[in-house]
Amino acid sequence: MASHPKKDLPVWEIRRYLEPGPIVLVSSSWKGRQNIMSMGWHTVMEFSPSRIGCFITSANHSYEMIRKSKECVINIPTYDMIDAVIRIGNTTGSETDKFADTGLTPVEADKVKAPLIKECYANFECKVADTGLLKKYSFFILEVVKAHVAASPKYPRTVHYRGDGVFMVSGKNVSYRRRFRPENL
Amino acid sequence: MASHPKKDLPVWEIRRYLEPGPIVLVSSSWKGRQNIMSMGWHTVMEFSPSRIGCFITSANHSYEMIRKSKECVINIPTYDMIDAVIRIGNTTGSETDKFADTGLTPVEADKVKAPLIKECYANFECKVADTGLLKKYSFFILEVVKAHVAASPKYPRTVHYRGDGVFMVSGKNVSYRRRFRPENL
Repeated sequence: MASHPKKDLPVWEIRRYLEPGPIVLVSSSWKGRQNIMSMGWHTVMEFSPSRIGCFITSANHSYEMIRKSKECVINIPTYDMIDAVIRIGNTTGSETDKFADTGLTPVEADKVKAPLIKECYANFECKVADTGLLKKYSFFILEVVKAHVAASPKYPRTVHYRGDGVFMVSGKNVSYRRRFRPENL
Repeated sequence: MASHPKKDLPVWEIRRYLEPGPIVLVSSSWKGRQNIMSMGWHTVMEFSPSRIGCFITSANHSYEMIRKSKECVINIPTYDMIDAVIRIGNTTGSETDKFADTGLTPVEADKVKAPLIKECYANFECKVADTGLLKKYSFFILEVVKAHVAASPKYPRTVHYRGDGVFMVSGKNVSYRRRFRPENL
């Protein structure tokens, strides 16, 4: 194991190290308009109920759409969608119809009015479960009420934002299953 | 862009899709004892103050150590540490001295009593900033008060838990910087 010589990092830059979960696209719908935003600040919070927590600032056009409709869809894009991911992250829904601009396809969801993004390999329909943390932390607690995932491949190439315009593309998958306690899998 | 045929997924399994941020090792100290746990459910919540939110159940030995000491360190391991990561995730601090068991090296931190893990390529010293979400969500809000990172490489190989004992190893990094608005980097 390496022992890395360290440098100090300004604490506001730690995001570059913790962010690289998959970038997701959050779709929403309010008063007949649809929108998409890209998001990297999210975490699983519970299995059952199936909870996701995510940070969305009120500067995003999607913020009020999600807060008012109390719904959204978390869609996971793959590396072949990188052009759309970058366009979505660098335009605003107040000026741009993100579906028209990217050519992505909205598909009707089962349990929410927000659309699924057809091209994404996973779509999680969410209801806003708790808005109590919005004022202090801009943090939405979502409950996933329906989940759709690609039948295959199991592990497509996802993109993980590093900051500074750099994305990490998911690499090889290695199983250590035999060394896990069953309850920890 | 692909259009994936979809299957339904039980909502409690969505973690397998959102989890793959970097696995981190959380070190803590309380009443002269030190501990380490592995954690995958975390998110950045703010730049300044530098906030991290993370889910830790009370079933973890670290839970009370962090809650009582109001401190911990978030350490990011690299792929060469995978054996230690798996050991840490499959033993409990109530029975095992994780430092002795893994051979990892505790190093004194600057601003907290919890130790840094020397072999990790990044160490973020944290104070617990808000315990108000513990009862309902087992969710700690941490403030990073000091950050140490490896001088190089910029992007070492990190490990990202897929579930079922499988880890994704971080892949290639691709820059799209020229296509970003400066304020979005």
